[in-house]
Amino acid sequence: MVYKGLIEKYRENLPVSDKTPVISLHEGNTPLIPARNLPDKLGFNGEIYLKFEGMNPTGSFKDRGMTMAVSKAVEDGSKAVICASTGNTSASAAAYAARAGIKCIVLIPEGKIALGKLSQAVMHGAEVLEIDGNFDEALNLVKELSSKYPLTLVNSINPFRIEGQKTAAYEICENLEQSPDYQFMPVGNAGNITAYWKGYKEYNKAEPGKYALPKMMGFQAAGSAPIVEGHPIAKPETIATAIRIGNPASWKTAEEARDESGGVIDKVTDEEILEAHRIVAATEGVFCEPASASSIAGLIKYIKQGYFKNANTVKIACILTGHGLKDPDTAVANAVKPKKVKAEIKDIINIIGF
Amino acid sequence: MVYKGLIEKYRENLPVSDKTPVISLHEGNTPLIPARNLPDKLGFNGEIYLKFEGMNPTGSFKDRGMTMAVSKAVEDGSKAVICASTGNTSASAAAYAARAGIKCIVLIPEGKIALGKLSQAVMHGAEVLEIDGNFDEALNLVKELSSKYPLTLVNSINPFRIEGQKTAAYEICENLEQSPDYQFMPVGNAGNITAYWKGYKEYNKAEPGKYALPKMMGFQAAGSAPIVEGHPIAKPETIATAIRIGNPASWKTAEEARDESGGVIDKVTDEEILEAHRIVAATEGVFCEPASASSIAGLIKYIKQGYFKNANTVKIACILTGHGLKDPDTAVANAVKPKKVKAEIKDIINIIGF
Repeated sequence: MVYKGLIEKYRENLPVSDKTPVISLHEGNTPLIPARNLPDKLGFNGEIYLKFEGMNPTGSFKDRGMTMAVSKAVEDGSKAVICASTGNTSASAAAYAARAGIKCIVLIPEGKIALGKLSQAVMHGAEVLEIDGNFDEALNLVKELSSKYPLTLVNSINPFRIEGQKTAAYEICENLEQSPDYQFMPVGNAGNITAYWKGYKEYNKAEPGKYALPKMMGFQAAGSAPIVEGHPIAKPETIATAIRIGNPASWKTAEEARDESGGVIDKVTDEEILEAHRIVAATEGVFCEPASASSIAGLIKYIKQGYFKNANTVKIACILTGHGLKDPDTAVANAVKPKKVKAEIKDIINIIGF
Repeated sequence: MVYKGLIEKYRENLPVSDKTPVISLHEGNTPLIPARNLPDKLGFNGEIYLKFEGMNPTGSFKDRGMTMAVSKAVEDGSKAVICASTGNTSASAAAYAARAGIKCIVLIPEGKIALGKLSQAVMHGAEVLEIDGNFDEALNLVKELSSKYPLTLVNSINPFRIEGQKTAAYEICENLEQSPDYQFMPVGNAGNITAYWKGYKEYNKAEPGKYALPKMMGFQAAGSAPIVEGHPIAKPETIATAIRIGNPASWKTAEEARDESGGVIDKVTDEEILEAHRIVAATEGVFCEPASASSIAGLIKYIKQGYFKNANTVKIACILTGHGLKDPDTAVANAVKPKKVKAEIKDIINIIGF
């Protein structure tokens, strides 16, 4: 069977019918890449798997939810979708709306949107409005706009988004032929941890003996950690722009995922995120966006704390939510610069040292 | 069966053995997305399929060849790989070398490398040298360096690259359950048209009744069209940096693919490329890099010329070789800019017009 996107694959587990027009870019079916060098590098003797959601069509996990949200919007006769976004949601909404042939309006916070993501929204023909406020203010505006005008809201408070996103948990279970013991992941607006937990619970309910429930380990950026601090953050700050969110829409369900699973929601600093970002690219060949690396940063933090007992029997899934190409500026700013050299063999050999 | 990369899937058709250490990032298995709106938009009544190679792990088709080249390099005991690159090859070589735990040295031409690609090479820990010359000069240098020093050359003159890349043709055949009638694709260093043709010929040989040979339709950028002009171009120029190559390494085999298939190698202007780049993003939700859009630009050109007789029975595969996120600067420079607006409902409604 040729893979044709997650709605076709998981139709029976999703709120779709034969009447739903499937708007798909063949999202999902992303690889669960076994880490080859990371365990040694981190002094950890369990197994680490990288769920590389950057291999979705627009380069982030948002496509999973968006194929559902836009398909359902079209089914309901909607002619336009709207969202607030730190970048990935707008890229995905714009792409699926383009494919559906409907309008897309996106509100982005001033200044702090990564270049790759901005290029996507504009190329896919969305109406992109940069507001003089942060993500949380943008989200409040689109909620109000979609309640007053014929615009379908496609942020993760749209319940179809969560339904699409839960399929990533299904894929991990199928790939491992069991659940992971722990899942490490970024937490921003908190829709994704909510979605994974829903997916794991569904597989557990269907086959409890095969699919135990993993502990959900979510990580916020230290400057943008409302759930960890226990209150909204008025001015969230972090280089991990995708999770620069001070008042998560799915706050409560994220806490439920944490508490029901016996996991944690904790924070990592920007320095820890950038270090993890570099390590996973340089040791595994997997280039994720900075926010994604908060999962790896969290894992490093917990390994160092001695959190894992009997680690050799442990399977860990780390969710890498977006591709590194989403934010090339942050990568280049934090990496060794290319060296300029004359086009001569001897000059090159002098540098590379043979 | 969980997909684990193209070497595992096509092991029997590739020069690998049980002794080959498989260095994989689960490349390949990219979608063949049926165009939903493009035929109407272009006034064409055949079927158009987009082979979106941007969904490979490093965002381009180069990963197909690199999993082979790096696996074989490691099998042969190599401790370092080297390549010349306009960007995509270096990103891929750096990623696979990182995963293999060996060194990677890349020579890039001065100035004209897209930001995304540069960010990849540096993040994956390659030694990146920017030479004061163009791609063709860089290629000559790495050929000489690899002949004199213990460095494995991983440009497409490495025959394992072509072997890996031919699997994209297999996938198209399997996906359509037949061959396409025409394949439109970019031509730069010309290794990819060589590889696809090899793949199609292999499937044709195995099952000639099922897999007829498609016509290979290759497109160079007008300012960088040596095969079309019939002589090397000393100073190739084009915004499509991935195909800014004046003296293709696989020139002869590209001409063979053209002539054996009854196809063409033609050129498209930068303006035609940028227009096609915008059209495919805005009508299908598929964002490719500018060089990739030369396939769509070529298709548009040939539709306008009335090239297709009985188009309603025609199936066309367009190869989109890399992700648009590879070159966000070109996209942003050529797209409508976001509008700045106050965080007020009435200001937003004034712009979006409800």
